[in-house]
Amino acid sequence: MSRLCVHTITTKPLSLEQCLAEFPKRGVSGITIWRQALEGRDLANVKHQTADAGMEVVSLCRGGFFPAKSATVRQKAIDDNLLAIEQAHAIGSPLIVLVCGAVPGQALVESRKQITDGIAACLPAAEAAGVKLAIEPLHPMYADDRSAVNTMRQAHEICDALGSPASVGIAVDVYHVWWDPELKAQIDLAGQTGRLHAFHICDWKTPTTDLLNDRGLMGEGCINIREISDWVDATGFTGHREVEIFSHKWWAEDQSLFLDQIASSYGNLYA
Amino acid sequence: MSRLCVHTITTKPLSLEQCLAEFPKRGVSGITIWRQALEGRDLANVKHQTADAGMEVVSLCRGGFFPAKSATVRQKAIDDNLLAIEQAHAIGSPLIVLVCGAVPGQALVESRKQITDGIAACLPAAEAAGVKLAIEPLHPMYADDRSAVNTMRQAHEICDALGSPASVGIAVDVYHVWWDPELKAQIDLAGQTGRLHAFHICDWKTPTTDLLNDRGLMGEGCINIREISDWVDATGFTGHREVEIFSHKWWAEDQSLFLDQIASSYGNLYA
Repeated sequence: MSRLCVHTITTKPLSLEQCLAEFPKRGVSGITIWRQALEGRDLANVKHQTADAGMEVVSLCRGGFFPAKSATVRQKAIDDNLLAIEQAHAIGSPLIVLVCGAVPGQALVESRKQITDGIAACLPAAEAAGVKLAIEPLHPMYADDRSAVNTMRQAHEICDALGSPASVGIAVDVYHVWWDPELKAQIDLAGQTGRLHAFHICDWKTPTTDLLNDRGLMGEGCINIREISDWVDATGFTGHREVEIFSHKWWAEDQSLFLDQIASSYGNLYA
Repeated sequence: MSRLCVHTITTKPLSLEQCLAEFPKRGVSGITIWRQALEGRDLANVKHQTADAGMEVVSLCRGGFFPAKSATVRQKAIDDNLLAIEQAHAIGSPLIVLVCGAVPGQALVESRKQITDGIAACLPAAEAAGVKLAIEPLHPMYADDRSAVNTMRQAHEICDALGSPASVGIAVDVYHVWWDPELKAQIDLAGQTGRLHAFHICDWKTPTTDLLNDRGLMGEGCINIREISDWVDATGFTGHREVEIFSHKWWAEDQSLFLDQIASSYGNLYA
């Protein structure tokens, strides 16, 4: 369980304080904090709270959403990412996950260029703060308005275009990339290039009834999670395995029981 | 309008006879017939009916669904595809579109092997009947249970593995492939190899509220349909542009008005 991390969004009905109270009871050692969980809180205090709970902050979710048709809106996005970098630094998060963004009707190639430019604009601040950035390729079903980066290959291409700075890498989420025939090769490449910054797990249910909020608990679906996880570990990755589940179904359940299920499902997966 | 084709599933509430009465009124010259529209009908009569209506049968939808965990079930799938070939021949359809299939939890690589074997088993009958087969790459969001073929590259690989028979090609549906960064190159390759057998259009709505049945009429969404269509035409493709829309919203409308909208939307797109 020493590598189990849970995202605050996974147990969305719980406050950050409840997460910090409940997660450690199941042996969860890492927490990825979504920015909405920080609302109204003193960031230095959050850093102390997580340390007091014995939890490691694995990452801050989420930055990104760089593309926009107007330069003014693109600058606002960059400003928001600079704020995220300050927040990550303040709570002691070593990493920000980037959901890169897309604009319906704008060419994906143009959006990827704007994403590259947006990350470049944030890079000096990220490096100064000691905060890394992880491009998360999103499933192609989100190419309309959430991310123009839909494969690990594209994430690598953006890293290349940026000159391969050590602070920019990739977040691999099995939900988004499990179908990709190049997945193993691209994970290997991420290992070789030092870009494998984060690893997220959940499952793909059949049927999936909602494009956003019907993700499955590990074991509820068809993804070869353990195999992908082994590919990730084979690169030398020793970071947390982060449980990130958006699910109307699970959010409607008792979150204490849900956390029990997460722990047992994780235990089965890595038994 | 000489290249406009409509799928019977697009106007699902209409019977085949109603389609044959209504489509030509809007200048629709091609019809792709879904197998359920043939139920209870004499196939030779369907061939005469479509000819009498002045409509060209563009293709029969759909064969495929080859993968299964048991060999018995795989053989049943092959038998069903052989039946589809007989049906296509009987109604005068030169083409069958293949939704290739997938089995939740079975490795996609294994499913693609079973798809290749399944097509190989049907090939002699297809060639004897003069019916072509078109592999339709499906969007990665259908990789769990509908198709392990999710990119044009994979469809090409299956054609290659079969030894590139002239009767096996690819159906390009903008809904499934619009996000693919390799799309133009793979369409070019399909042209060069004589594999571009069919071209389907509709649109991707933002938000999309249902994974299966929330496709948009051309213009309702974000797909660069005209650009992709121009890539297709640039290969020398002169076949029909087939409007294939699965939509609870449109099926609930007056189908006569919907057909008017299809015709005007198509007219705007190719003005």
